[in-house]
Parts: sequence; C-alpha cells; structure tokens
Amino acid sequence: MAMTGVLRPGHAVVRVLDLDESVKFYTDVIGLKETGRDKSGRVYFKTHEERDHNSFVIRKADSAGIDYFGFKVLNQGALKSLEGRLRDMGVATERIPAGELLETGERVRFEVPTGHQIELYADKTDVGNGLGYVNPEAWLQNTRGINPVRMDHCLIYGPDIDGARKVFEDALGFSLVERALLEDGKTDLATWLTCSAKAHDIAMVRHGEPGKLHHVSFMLNTWEQVLRAADIMSMNRVSIDIGPTRHGITQGTTIYFFDPSGNRMETFCGGYQWYPDMKPTTWTWEEVGAGVFYHDRKLNERFLSVVT
Amino acid sequence: MAMTGVLRPGHAVVRVLDLDESVKFYTDVIGLKETGRDKSGRVYFKTHEERDHNSFVIRKADSAGIDYFGFKVLNQGALKSLEGRLRDMGVATERIPAGELLETGERVRFEVPTGHQIELYADKTDVGNGLGYVNPEAWLQNTRGINPVRMDHCLIYGPDIDGARKVFEDALGFSLVERALLEDGKTDLATWLTCSAKAHDIAMVRHGEPGKLHHVSFMLNTWEQVLRAADIMSMNRVSIDIGPTRHGITQGTTIYFFDPSGNRMETFCGGYQWYPDMKPTTWTWEEVGAGVFYHDRKLNERFLSVVT
Amino acid sequence: MAMTGVLRPGHAVVRVLDLDESVKFYTDVIGLKETGRDKSGRVYFKTHEERDHNSFVIRKADSAGIDYFGFKVLNQGALKSLEGRLRDMGVATERIPAGELLETGERVRFEVPTGHQIELYADKTDVGNGLGYVNPEAWLQNTRGINPVRMDHCLIYGPDIDGARKVFEDALGFSLVERALLEDGKTDLATWLTCSAKAHDIAMVRHGEPGKLHHVSFMLNTWEQVLRAADIMSMNRVSIDIGPTRHGITQGTTIYFFDPSGNRMETFCGGYQWYPDMKPTTWTWEEVGAGVFYHDRKLNERFLSVVT
Amino acid sequence: MAMTGVLRPGHAVVRVLDLDESVKFYTDVIGLKETGRDKSGRVYFKTHEERDHNSFVIRKADSAGIDYFGFKVLNQGALKSLEGRLRDMGVATERIPAGELLETGERVRFEVPTGHQIELYADKTDVGNGLGYVNPEAWLQNTRGINPVRMDHCLIYGPDIDGARKVFEDALGFSLVERALLEDGKTDLATWLTCSAKAHDIAMVRHGEPGKLHHVSFMLNTWEQVLRAADIMSMNRVSIDIGPTRHGITQGTTIYFFDPSGNRMETFCGGYQWYPDMKPTTWTWEEVGAGVFYHDRKLNERFLSVVT
Repeated sequence: MAMTGVLRPGHAVVRVLDLDESVKFYTDVIGLKETGRDKSGRVYFKTHEERDHNSFVIRKADSAGIDYFGFKVLNQGALKSLEGRLRDMGVATERIPAGELLETGERVRFEVPTGHQIELYADKTDVGNGLGYVNPEAWLQNTRGINPVRMDHCLIYGPDIDGARKVFEDALGFSLVERALLEDGKTDLATWLTCSAKAHDIAMVRHGEPGKLHHVSFMLNTWEQVLRAADIMSMNRVSIDIGPTRHGITQGTTIYFFDPSGNRMETFCGGYQWYPDMKPTTWTWEEVGAGVFYHDRKLNERFLSVVT
Repeated sequence: MAMTGVLRPGHAVVRVLDLDESVKFYTDVIGLKETGRDKSGRVYFKTHEERDHNSFVIRKADSAGIDYFGFKVLNQGALKSLEGRLRDMGVATERIPAGELLETGERVRFEVPTGHQIELYADKTDVGNGLGYVNPEAWLQNTRGINPVRMDHCLIYGPDIDGARKVFEDALGFSLVERALLEDGKTDLATWLTCSAKAHDIAMVRHGEPGKLHHVSFMLNTWEQVLRAADIMSMNRVSIDIGPTRHGITQGTTIYFFDPSGNRMETFCGGYQWYPDMKPTTWTWEEVGAGVFYHDRKLNERFLSVVT
Repeated sequence: MAMTGVLRPGHAVVRVLDLDESVKFYTDVIGLKETGRDKSGRVYFKTHEERDHNSFVIRKADSAGIDYFGFKVLNQGALKSLEGRLRDMGVATERIPAGELLETGERVRFEVPTGHQIELYADKTDVGNGLGYVNPEAWLQNTRGINPVRMDHCLIYGPDIDGARKVFEDALGFSLVERALLEDGKTDLATWLTCSAKAHDIAMVRHGEPGKLHHVSFMLNTWEQVLRAADIMSMNRVSIDIGPTRHGITQGTTIYFFDPSGNRMETFCGGYQWYPDMKPTTWTWEEVGAGVFYHDRKLNERFLSVVT
Repeated sequence: MAMTGVLRPGHAVVRVLDLDESVKFYTDVIGLKETGRDKSGRVYFKTHEERDHNSFVIRKADSAGIDYFGFKVLNQGALKSLEGRLRDMGVATERIPAGELLETGERVRFEVPTGHQIELYADKTDVGNGLGYVNPEAWLQNTRGINPVRMDHCLIYGPDIDGARKVFEDALGFSLVERALLEDGKTDLATWLTCSAKAHDIAMVRHGEPGKLHHVSFMLNTWEQVLRAADIMSMNRVSIDIGPTRHGITQGTTIYFFDPSGNRMETFCGGYQWYPDMKPTTWTWEEVGAGVFYHDRKLNERFLSVVT
C-alpha cells in the first residue's frame, strides 16, 4: 500500500459562543451540511463533497478555540500500531469509546507539546457525497454559500513546536515540508507538516501560550472560487482578516476570516503536490513576511497575535 | 511514513519518428526543458517545475509508441522489497544498471500482462526547479509554451488488464479508483489506478493488441491554463483530438492532442484527491461515454481505436 | 452623448415545440427568470442581471426558429429618426403598439434582406436586477442553472447578407467588425456587426433559405463559468453541438447547444472591446474553420447546415 | 453611428523621477511595449494589444504626477464639434499641433475644474497589435510581465468635481455611472463617468489640492491574470497598496500598486457593461468603504490621502 498510516485531517472540534448563530454561519455562509447533533449539544458538519459523516464539529462554550483535532488512519491495525509508537515515545494516550463522537469509531487521544489535543481514529461512517459510486455527475448542484471541498488542515500555536514536530514525525510518520526561521537562523518560528501528498496537513507556530488555534482551513478548488468566497463573506458581513492573496509557503491562495465567535478560519486553494523525496523549503526571518503573505511581503500584526 | 512504496510516475520513454521536429515540439509547444542527451541518441526532458532530472524521454524509431513507463519508489529498501513481491507473484524482473538512463539509479524492469514494460527506481538526480529551497518565488518566470506542472500519468492499451491490475495492486500497492464496465456488467473495459493521493497514476483499457500507448498526460494547474494550452496548440497547428472538455472519470479537465509522430498526449487538470478509504467508482457500459467525455456524453471513434 | 442610436440587442422571440418543457429548460437549466406571460401564450424571461423586463420570449409553434429580434434604442427621438432612415432606404416599417409585447413600448418592425424580422424600440420597463441602485452587493445569490449575464447577440442565416448589412450599417449605424470570405476571396460568407463596443451584436451567414436562426447567444463572465455551464448541460442531458472552445472570430469562448425544440443556443464569454476606429478583421476561406472554431481549426458539418 | 463623440481614454502622460528605472518598470514588470522616444525625452508605450502608437507616456520630472490625460474622439469633425461645445461652456481650449506627441494628431487641450489638463484628439497612428487584420491568432505570444490589455481609465483628485463632471457630461457627452456621497447625503465625494459602454472611463474624488493623480489603470482580462499580476509584483518587489480584491463600485477586481516614483497604478479587471438607459448607482457615506474595497468593506487611509 503506497499510502498508509495517517491518511488525512478528519475532524476539528471547535468552541463557539453562540450555537444558533454559529450553525447559521457554518451552514449558510460556509456552506457546510449539518449531519447531526448529539446529547451533549455538539453540532456536526461535513462539506457536501466529503464522504465521511463529519469533519467539523462545534460546541457551545464560554471561550472560542479548539478542543481537539483528529486524523483518520488507514485501519484499526494502523491505529493500534500508531498508538504503540506514541507510547514508545512516552506520549500518554487515551482511548475514547466509539460513538462518543457521532458515527465515529474508537479514538486514540493524546497531547502534543504545543498543548493541543490530537486524535487518531480509523472509522467514520461513509454517508456519501450525494453523487453515488455509479456513474456520478461531476459535482453536486443546489448547494449554498462558499461550499468548500473539504476540511483541509489547521494551524496551531503553542510553546514547544519542536517537541510536537517530533511526535508528528517520529511517531506518526509526518514529514516536514516547509519551515520559517527565527532571527537566529536556527530556531523554527513555524513548521508545516504533511501526512500525505499535500503541502500541509497541520502547521505550528511557536507561541507563549499553549493550545491555541490560529485557524482551521477549508479547501476550495479554484482561485475564482476564492473570489466568490470573499464576495459571499462581504455579503454576509464576515470579518476578513486578509485576502484574497497568496501564501509563499505552500504557494496556495487564501482568505483568512473570523467566525462569529472570533475563531479564525481559512479558505485555502492550491498548494503544490508533495512527495517524500522532496527537500523541505526554508524561509529566513527576513522573508517570513513573503512566506506568509506573498503579495504584501510582510506580516500583519494580527497574524502573530490573534488566536483563540 | 504515511506515504511509502511507489511514489509517482517518474519517466515515460516514448518513440518518435523525427527527433529534431520532436525536440522542437516538446520544447517550444509543450514547454518542457531539455536536460540532456545520451550516446544512444535519447533526448531527456523535465517540466520546469519538476525537480528530478528527467520525466519524459524520446528516442528516434520507425514507429511511434512507448518503450517503458517508470515509477519512482521511496528508497532502495522499497525498491528491493517491491522487486521481491513481483518475483513472489511470478513476475520476471530485470535490473537495469544505474546511469543507463541519465542521472537515474538502478531500475527494476518487468512486463505487465497488458504487454507493457514498467520500471521502478529509487534515485534520480534532483536538479531543482529553478526556485531553490530557500525563500522561493511562487513560480518560474520566462518559461515558454504550455509549461505543464509535471508528467502526471499514462493510459495504456493491452489485452489482459485484469492481470496487469493484479500486479499493480498486489505487488505494487496500487488501488483501484475508478472502473468502466463492458456490456456484460462484470468485465472491466478500463481501470484507473493510483499509487498516491491522485485520482490516477496509471490507467488501462482492454484492447486486442499488447503494449499500446493511448496517451501520456501532463498536468496543468487551472482551467484557464487548459484554454491557454489549446490556444497554443492552435497557434502551432497541433492536431487536437478532443477538448478542452471534462472527464466524468476523475472529474479532471482535458485536451487530447497528437505529437508530430502521432503519439497522443494529454493536458490534464484537476481530478479529485483520493484516499484509500474511498470506495471505487463504477461506470456502466451505457454511461462510459459520459465517463470519458463528460460534456458530450459519448465516446468518439478515435478514443477506442487510435493508439501507438 | 458618446453612445447613441441603437444601444443593444433587447429581445429575441423564439418558437418552441413544447411550452412547459421549454419553460423548464430556460428556467432550470439556462437559469433565466420568468417575468410574465401574456394572453397569446408567450412566456417572458430575463437574465437575473438584466434590468429590463424581458430579453427572451418563447411561444409555442409547430416549428422551431425565431420570430423576430429586437434592438433597444436610446429614446423615442432615436426611434423616430432611425425609422425615417429605414424608410429613406426603401425599407418598409411597421409600428407595433406599445404593450403588444409585455412592458415594452411601441416597436418599429421591418424585414432585412436575409428574410428576418428586426425590431427597434425605446422603452422597456426597468424591473431591476434585484441588487438595487443604492449600495448594491456584487452579485445576486440564490440563482439557479447557468445564469448568464445577458442575452447578447444572435447569428442569423439568410440569402442576401450584403443587403442586410447595408441596412444595419447605413440606416442603423452598425459597423462591420469581422468578416469571413468565400473561396472567391471577395464575397462575404459571413459578417459580424456591432452597434456598440462589443465584438458583435448581430452576425449573418449567407444561406439559401431566408429567415433562419443559427443561434441566440447568452453571455457568461468567465471561462470557469463556461465550464460550469457545460457541466450543467451534461447533468441535464442537453445536447451540446460543440464546446467549450474558442472562436478565432471575436476571440470569445463558446458552447453551442440545442434547446428541447432544436433551436441552437450559445453561451459566449469574452470577445474584445470594439471601437469605431478599428479596421475590420478578415478571415479567408482557407482559415474560416480557425475563425469559427479556433482550437479545431475546422468547421463541423452542423455549423453550416443545422438551423431552425 | 451608435458610438460617437469621445471614444475612449487614449493617453496618460505621467511624470517619473528616474527615467531608466521607470522604463525598466513599465517594460519588464507591467509588460508595456516601448514604441518611441522624442526630443524632449518622453518615452512612449502601448500595451501589446493596443493598436494605436501610444497610450502611456512618461517624462522625467522633479515630482511624480500626471501632466495630462487624453481621450480619442471619433474623427476631426467630432474634435471640432466638441471643442465648440467646450468653448460654449466657457472652457478655454488650446490646440496642440500634430506631432507634438509622437504619431498623434492635433490635440485640443483644456483644464477641468479639478485642476487637471484634459485633451481630445482624433488621430493616432495605428501601428497594429502584432496579430494583423487577416486570420489573426487569438493572442500574442512571447510577451513579458503583467501584459495588460489596454490603458483603461484614471482616477483624479481635485476640488471642484461638480464642475468637472459638468464639463464631462454637458460638453463631452459623458454619463454618470456611479457616485459616492459625503456624510450630508447630498454632496458627491466621488463620481465615476463613462464615455462608452464601460463602467468608467474617468473617475474623480473631491480633494483639497488640485490636479492630483490617484491612479492610472490598466485592464486585465481575467481574475487569474490579476493573481498572476500580483505574483509578478511580488517577484519584482513592487509596493502593493491593496489587492487582489474587488471593488463594489463597478464590480471590477483590482490591485493598486506604486510605480518606482510613487505614482499609484492599478490593474483592473471586469466591471459591468454600461448602457445609457441605466440609472446611476449611489453609495452612501456609511457604505463607501464597501464601494471601494468590497471585501474589507472599509477604506484604508492611503486611499484618501496618498496621491501624486
């Protein structure tokens, strides 16, 4: 099997301040499909194109932010093997029973040294994307809002990104794709890691406070869809942080914006295809602005300071 | 390592009738970069964005067609292991010494039951894409012609596509992504296989004659680049088979066209992201036209009969 | 006033074989907005973005084709003056009372030497495009189907295109933008005329039978919208004549397709901006294929023979 | 003649601080074609697609800014007639002899109440766009840089925009397309005027100092070309003011950036088709931010203050 172990980002569970307002936002503006609610009050979403039951889950809380971020692995064998490698590295793991998250199998949860809860799981019910597996049409009509292709990745902020990277690389088989350096020319300010053929599946920025969310990202297929997304944000008075613009890092195009609770979200498009024989790309401290915002070639204050 | 074994299509070695005319075509019209010539007269090309020394090689011959198609594997360990699995399946393998193909390590060559020569190799010199690994710009200026991103996949025609699929799946870890059925509703007319997260890395159509090439495909990043490619073909009086149009299969957009020797080539764009937990898509005999040419919803005669 | 006289194509009145099926087609697939029906059974449509009450009207008949094609003129003064110029040229004109066509003022109707009924009118009720004239959003959400920007132009087939051109140029102030020549290198096979800054507002092909419709065209804003339109046609099993492709003539991109009654329609995108100081472009007989279908560089049989 | 009087923006003559650096910028980055230099040291450019000899002219000076902005009119009759209407309104006009500007006929120059020098002329040598008038290809290969379609419009800043608008409307036949209001809900902050079928050919913002240039704009054909333009600006370290983004006003997409002398320039794409039967659109003071920058829905400080 050419693709094995950790497959892809599977679910982000995010805290919101007002549930109804957030459901409306993620349904009408982002264009996700609500797929369920559970007894604890969590609301489940998937993109229309995703096949698994959920990829984005919100729950009401007093503060915004992310509860945990989960990755789907190939199968139960991979789950068990990865759990073993985590423990071998001294990472404490916890098994969350199947069904605790709707239509999702048993999960292995652990904390990485940035202070974030990460999960692995092998099973989530395939509810289909509405096109079927026989003679499907090219895409689904009658969707609404921005309608991204998938929940794509997240960027987390926390103290020990070196330690967290070690867990992702050594235990979970992720690879370093790009890095941005601090002024000393040695220490990483930020790293972009992949578990697949994407330019990133998770990224981390060094930050004093642990467990912080910079953004969860939803993928769009084309630059014209990025423009359409920005237009829809404007029509719905969504607060745009920056964009449409391009990242130097990953070469993708982007809009950063805020959900009604202040969680930063992204629509991301493009990004090169990555293979494990590629050397990582490095951004020096002087050019990290161009790496993050390729057109402006400088960071805005918010990028480094506003997290939830 | 989440991505292992066979990584991607690495080289296609194609026969042409007139070398100079072909070099001009692949350089000026397709926009490949010539990277070398060897004593046997072969001319080597890569796309500007590819990092390895070559991905497309031509040699002068009396008839057009494909000599062999090679896949890059993760490392020498993977090469040896895959070679062993081929032999375990009873597939005869041959080692071609390093350097026989310029800047390319030792290759394992074998024949699949469609009558095609397939190769595996672990090493090819990284000559870079001109952007470097430190603070790279977003893309390379001053390229010419169509300028595809990479050599992406090929479609081969031959008799025993079931046997060939078995080799790709069982020995090499490929997965079935899509299939088109014959009138009996059981036998495969064609199969699309992946070794990575792409919708296809190789495809096969059932055909009486062995070892035939339907097309080698070059990837473009956007639908606007597809239009530009068709314009450039027109300006250079390239014979277009069909397109710009969309495939139902893979959902990608396409132009099929012929090189000066009559080899069909493709510019391909898009195609969904594939993961090993996805069920294959099936196209029934009645809808195979829509599967291949989504807009016209019918095959043209050439698609099934003209191969080299 | 820099823009005066004839402003733009205003309405096409087209015959269909089945009214309900056609209403469904133009509403659900093309994405027009039905704006009214009259006592004679005609159904009125506009694009969502058009401001005037109607631009495309269908009526049930035993044969497909076009009843008449109307142009909006600047005001009643222009209408009267243009009517005078027509009569001065010996063109018989008829006044159709206001209201005969819903929400449309008095029309001046006449026949051009291709055998087509052409109309001029100054008034049609502005019913708005749903965005308003104060702080409008960038575009209208919740439309359906292909959703073109406007009814853009038509191509008519008939015998005396020289005579018709003379009427459009000398009486109505149109200009010749492009022409395609017959084998003799002198006689026009076809002409493209404009009354504004577009590459064409009406076009004519020399043809034995008078009064024939080749196509009515609807404008799209982007090449990605052209792909989306072709996808929607496929999803709705619309018969596509050709496309997506590019015209050499006007440089626009196109899909030709047939409505349920066999009337050819077009989605057109692009086309250069025209000004009256530009010399006309000529296509010689040998290259008329490239002029019409720039990628294939040859006409298909249907283009010259299938009309309604 | 449906299109008459003033046709379009024809030339902008702009002051730069360093001629060589500016020639390099407008040639290599913007991708204009240098078409000549005159004895006074002015350097002439056109876009590759424009047919007239020049549309953008620079001269060395101690301060940046615009000398004058010229419009091409239909013919000598129109020139004379428009000159007469200006004089009838009490606007002093001056005749500049043919040839004073290279390959340009006699010009009528006058000052509008914003303090800007405006010119009209009927003749400028058609040097062609390299494609010819017989069987042209769809576009010109082997261009460089951003390569806009045409010099499109300008935005000027000055005190009496009401008086200037009166000149453009009453003497020159321009029409009001959009307006932005001050807090009083009556006075115009800014107006957008057209002489053709474009959403604007010139725009004006009320400003204390007379004769100021906000930007000269170059048109691009697609949103993907806008992204490419921003990428090229980044690669050449061009200072981007804002963008890629959308204007609410005109609905066009935009990048504002600065030339090496600090003159703001724009790449503009899209914008709706305007006809004289359309009512003007109004932007209230509260929403003028959304009018100018549709995604951010607020002005940046630079937009109102930085002019040359």
